Amino acid sequence: MKSFMDENFLLQTATAQDLYHHHAASQPIIDYHCHLDPAMIAADYRFRSITELWLGGDHYKWRAMRTNGVPERLCTGTDTTDWEKFEAWAATVPYTFRNPLYHWTHLELKTAFGINERLNPDTARKIYDICNDRLQHAPQFTARGLMRRYGVEMVCTTDDPVDDLHHHRAIRESGFEIGVRPAWRPDKAMAVESPEAFAAYVRRLGEVADIDISTFGDFIDALQRRHDFFHSEGCRLSDHGLEEFYAEPYTDTEIAIIFNKVVGGEMLDRKEVRKFKSAMLYIFAVQDYEAGWVQQYHYGALRNNNSRMMAQLGPDTGFDSIGQWSTAHSMARFLDQLDYEGRLTKTILYNLNPADNEMVATMLGNFQDGSVAGKIQWGSGWWFLDQKDGMERQMNALSLLGLLSRFVGMLTDSRSFLSYPRHEYFRRTLCNLLGNDVEQGLIPFTGYEEQRVRAMVEDICYRNAKTYF
Amino acid sequence: MKSFMDENFLLQTATAQDLYHHHAASQPIIDYHCHLDPAMIAADYRFRSITELWLGGDHYKWRAMRTNGVPERLCTGTDTTDWEKFEAWAATVPYTFRNPLYHWTHLELKTAFGINERLNPDTARKIYDICNDRLQHAPQFTARGLMRRYGVEMVCTTDDPVDDLHHHRAIRESGFEIGVRPAWRPDKAMAVESPEAFAAYVRRLGEVADIDISTFGDFIDALQRRHDFFHSEGCRLSDHGLEEFYAEPYTDTEIAIIFNKVVGGEMLDRKEVRKFKSAMLYIFAVQDYEAGWVQQYHYGALRNNNSRMMAQLGPDTGFDSIGQWSTAHSMARFLDQLDYEGRLTKTILYNLNPADNEMVATMLGNFQDGSVAGKIQWGSGWWFLDQKDGMERQMNALSLLGLLSRFVGMLTDSRSFLSYPRHEYFRRTLCNLLGNDVEQGLIPFTGYEEQRVRAMVEDICYRNAKTYF
Amino acid sequence: MKSFMDENFLLQTATAQDLYHHHAASQPIIDYHCHLDPAMIAADYRFRSITELWLGGDHYKWRAMRTNGVPERLCTGTDTTDWEKFEAWAATVPYTFRNPLYHWTHLELKTAFGINERLNPDTARKIYDICNDRLQHAPQFTARGLMRRYGVEMVCTTDDPVDDLHHHRAIRESGFEIGVRPAWRPDKAMAVESPEAFAAYVRRLGEVADIDISTFGDFIDALQRRHDFFHSEGCRLSDHGLEEFYAEPYTDTEIAIIFNKVVGGEMLDRKEVRKFKSAMLYIFAVQDYEAGWVQQYHYGALRNNNSRMMAQLGPDTGFDSIGQWSTAHSMARFLDQLDYEGRLTKTILYNLNPADNEMVATMLGNFQDGSVAGKIQWGSGWWFLDQKDGMERQMNALSLLGLLSRFVGMLTDSRSFLSYPRHEYFRRTLCNLLGNDVEQGLIPFTGYEEQRVRAMVEDICYRNAKTYF
Repeated sequence: MKSFMDENFLLQTATAQDLYHHHAASQPIIDYHCHLDPAMIAADYRFRSITELWLGGDHYKWRAMRTNGVPERLCTGTDTTDWEKFEAWAATVPYTFRNPLYHWTHLELKTAFGINERLNPDTARKIYDICNDRLQHAPQFTARGLMRRYGVEMVCTTDDPVDDLHHHRAIRESGFEIGVRPAWRPDKAMAVESPEAFAAYVRRLGEVADIDISTFGDFIDALQRRHDFFHSEGCRLSDHGLEEFYAEPYTDTEIAIIFNKVVGGEMLDRKEVRKFKSAMLYIFAVQDYEAGWVQQYHYGALRNNNSRMMAQLGPDTGFDSIGQWSTAHSMARFLDQLDYEGRLTKTILYNLNPADNEMVATMLGNFQDGSVAGKIQWGSGWWFLDQKDGMERQMNALSLLGLLSRFVGMLTDSRSFLSYPRHEYFRRTLCNLLGNDVEQGLIPFTGYEEQRVRAMVEDICYRNAKTYF
Repeated sequence: MKSFMDENFLLQTATAQDLYHHHAASQPIIDYHCHLDPAMIAADYRFRSITELWLGGDHYKWRAMRTNGVPERLCTGTDTTDWEKFEAWAATVPYTFRNPLYHWTHLELKTAFGINERLNPDTARKIYDICNDRLQHAPQFTARGLMRRYGVEMVCTTDDPVDDLHHHRAIRESGFEIGVRPAWRPDKAMAVESPEAFAAYVRRLGEVADIDISTFGDFIDALQRRHDFFHSEGCRLSDHGLEEFYAEPYTDTEIAIIFNKVVGGEMLDRKEVRKFKSAMLYIFAVQDYEAGWVQQYHYGALRNNNSRMMAQLGPDTGFDSIGQWSTAHSMARFLDQLDYEGRLTKTILYNLNPADNEMVATMLGNFQDGSVAGKIQWGSGWWFLDQKDGMERQMNALSLLGLLSRFVGMLTDSRSFLSYPRHEYFRRTLCNLLGNDVEQGLIPFTGYEEQRVRAMVEDICYRNAKTYF
Repeated sequence: MKSFMDENFLLQTATAQDLYHHHAASQPIIDYHCHLDPAMIAADYRFRSITELWLGGDHYKWRAMRTNGVPERLCTGTDTTDWEKFEAWAATVPYTFRNPLYHWTHLELKTAFGINERLNPDTARKIYDICNDRLQHAPQFTARGLMRRYGVEMVCTTDDPVDDLHHHRAIRESGFEIGVRPAWRPDKAMAVESPEAFAAYVRRLGEVADIDISTFGDFIDALQRRHDFFHSEGCRLSDHGLEEFYAEPYTDTEIAIIFNKVVGGEMLDRKEVRKFKSAMLYIFAVQDYEAGWVQQYHYGALRNNNSRMMAQLGPDTGFDSIGQWSTAHSMARFLDQLDYEGRLTKTILYNLNPADNEMVATMLGNFQDGSVAGKIQWGSGWWFLDQKDGMERQMNALSLLGLLSRFVGMLTDSRSFLSYPRHEYFRRTLCNLLGNDVEQGLIPFTGYEEQRVRAMVEDICYRNAKTYF
């Protein structure tokens, strides 16, 4: 029996262990898509407690606690102490066996705090005190300290076009040695389902872009101005959150009319919404192509399913799930239009429903044009799929239907400064897959091929992303 | 090489064997959803032969036989002897390697009859004679005897609202020590696709509820009266067979009109059908909430695909298959409406297409409200998925996306008094999954955590269901 | 560590090795669906180089090269030498670890050329020269020589109804000892999306059938005449490439009108297209039933997704992918109609999206009528799924939801004379699955059952197909 989470955690073969310890473990981290708050990095934020760090915004943990019968006030309540919440979480942890939270929790305790004990009701107080002591007093436990601890080389945050990016400037000007880049996430600029919120967004965009927006043309000019600004601030990456892809036929006149309608406060019908989103997706993609950026698409989440809790807590609080859309046609048409015009930039596709895995894995190949190795990428297991099984299924399907060797690898997509061990988790999983194949005689491991396997691990952990971005 | 189906069948590690033999094997069985005939339990039915018991209504076996080239008369014919049918089945058995039927068959022979030989043409006559001798003469081989043999504590049957439940009363009054409860299955009360059958059902419902049904309001009153009656007879559980979920907007007036139309014999269009079903699903759910019941939804079967055989044999004879519906939106809206009104009772969702697994597994979390651990459940692998691979996929996805620890575990959903070994099969599979994780260092197995793993096995095999229902 | 691709490649247990070497390896090959060019067999074609043989038409390899950053001129260009292309492929090969191409490539080198070295930039020139020398000079390296080398007993090509099959006749008349049969692939006779191409096809059909086609009735008569002709030339098998199944209600009058419309050059709307396809699918199936043929359906490909490359290279050049259609209803209705009328012939269904696996696996059972063992078949992993994981998933789902024992097994679906090692790959995978089950005590392996397991391997590798076709 292997002991829990030892140095060869997840590494079932000698080859896997060799690959991980000699080629994966020490690679720097390029976290090319995350939701870290740049203000915290700018301020080199110090957390008041492990509760703030772990439970302040982690909807994964809240969901597990609710499922475990923990009342809402101990998840997100404001009338509870940090200790009460931590205690409730600690009592939930032993009920999370086989859930990635169990592994994340103990990897984070181990790698950040050097704690090898298991969190449970008996150890909760002791662990709470140790963590808090370090967070409050030890110099290396600030936001930046944690990033340094995990060997981060670069992160890309997620930012709205109206953001002035002053935190990013402050970070740069402070001389922080780790790269912190903004990323362009213009979801609100196509959220026309709610005319009022959209109109407000258009006004705000006009202000920051210093353009008086009265037509769709003005709207796009304002976005382009912000795109240029983001570029000047170091942004080289966009990201889009979609339910599905949109590639409806439309005319410029139609879009101009739809724009006026929605800004005027009228509800759009389903067809108009789809046409507008089709236009925006296309325009965003052309902007990214012209600026030489990488574009990312996260699609397939069914969000805000619980109206009661949406009213109480707002979005991103643990009430989203995996949706079901058959979007292959639209995805193909959208990418084809851009490719046909020679305007398809480097692209990363992320699906949330693993039933789409093989469709996405084969979609890539339709638009690989030989200009850049791995031009069209399939993003690593996202959100609910960001765990061993999800990663393995993504890497297996990518291997079988594309080239794993050219994969840009892991990203955290996380709001937490403690999520970097997920790169370790990913790397162990990758090395384990390769190690198993080698041991079973499925991949040769002598001479030229042995060197290629070793290089491949380093590529996927670090070099492919370095080259790609 | 492990010998076939020995005491460590399906248990690949020492930990799995320890967990199974010490914590799972001896747990009582709560079979909270099955299709046993209460008349047989009331009468303590004695089977005339293993053919009646095995082949009298088992569409799994008929499908396998048809696939194996066995003519229909040897599957369901009335001009054949019990021996002829058994012989045809015995000749098919060796062609079922890797199909769950091979394991079910031999587990049943072993646990009910103590037969360790394999069924094949050479052994068929001997096994046939032994089984029949016991079924006809041994006291413990009646319906009740078989339930006792397998340590059953409680079963819930499946009953139509118009059923008078007199068999259930007879069972109770007989002092039978095993609980036999009815469950409410009102599918016919929303089957408006066929106006004639629906109108007949409404008339029958009116009779048994002693209400003269002339409006939709009367219809609901009658159903409520039957719901109250079922409650008074010990029912605490409903069950619904759906193709997909329905959550269309509707008004009470619309539903009243649709009701009059269909009862009047008119065909409804697709929209009307969906509105009506949406209304009924909602009303059923509120009734269950108000009575404090658990509600179950089995969705996704594409039924009665073979018109020729439907005409010849009727439904449930082996001509159904796994369907494809993208029902995530409707499922979410349906549950959200109830949750929003504070009327969402404990709920179990069963999907038939495993491509929906991850969607369903994440849907649960949207409506876990912390009031009860595991309030919203994902039912164990159903029908075609009720086998090792289906169980493993369900438990793996539940583990990764929810809390396996809070799972209410196995049920047979079976028409047969010989299906209880499926609980053994499930328990072995569960222990094997946990054992593998422990041996690989994925779950700690000392101190507090070891006790939790051991308790978790008992919880999933028995205690969670006991607490939940 | 097992060495790469040794004699026990893919065979993890002693039982698997025993089964493969003693029961699978020496079975003849019945390749009942492929895309070999009968002209090459008729001429006993000699390839000018390994580049022509490997890279002349293999869109799998082109996709991998494009993904690896290889420019198009080195994939499909006409201004490059054979060596340049081969060199580009050899440089890509070490980037295909975990992709089936890595295994296919080395299995082909080993079994056809006796080369056990790995292809990479260091070995490229040497391997190129050896292969070319054999292809150009060794007598056994012609088209027929390769078929003999792999123990092929029979192949079925893929032919359009307008084909005059003179190559097939030439092959027969030449006394070639391997059976080469045509198969009927009438896709163009339902491709009404493009009126111009369809009208041209109708004219061409009229010419070869010697019928002046002016009505839909004439059209069907012409097709029937060609069907009879194909039958007289030894054809016993049809094949249909579909996006999804079609089973819309229609009247003969409607179809007659639609036919006139499209032949007259008018575009059809979506509904008309679906009605027409529904009619054709039905008529084709009845023709096959009446002739006693086997019918095959390959569905679910999303084709020609890259307009730019479609214009440049045409179809089947590596720009297709896995689509998403929910076709269960139509598939069921289509088969039901035929079964109801007693006109459902032996049928093989192939899906491209593995998310459909369980639906298809359960669809079979609805129409198994006991007349023939395994009458309705689920085809082996197709196209993107024609690899170890795809094969295993198909065989596992078939095992769990049907009878693996009755499976007609592998086919190449290939354009290449070097694809026969895929049968070896399939057989190793099959034996490995069975071996694992035996070793784990899931299948008994003594006496009657041991003989059945051994016979089952031979059945699936050869005898089932022999009996079925």
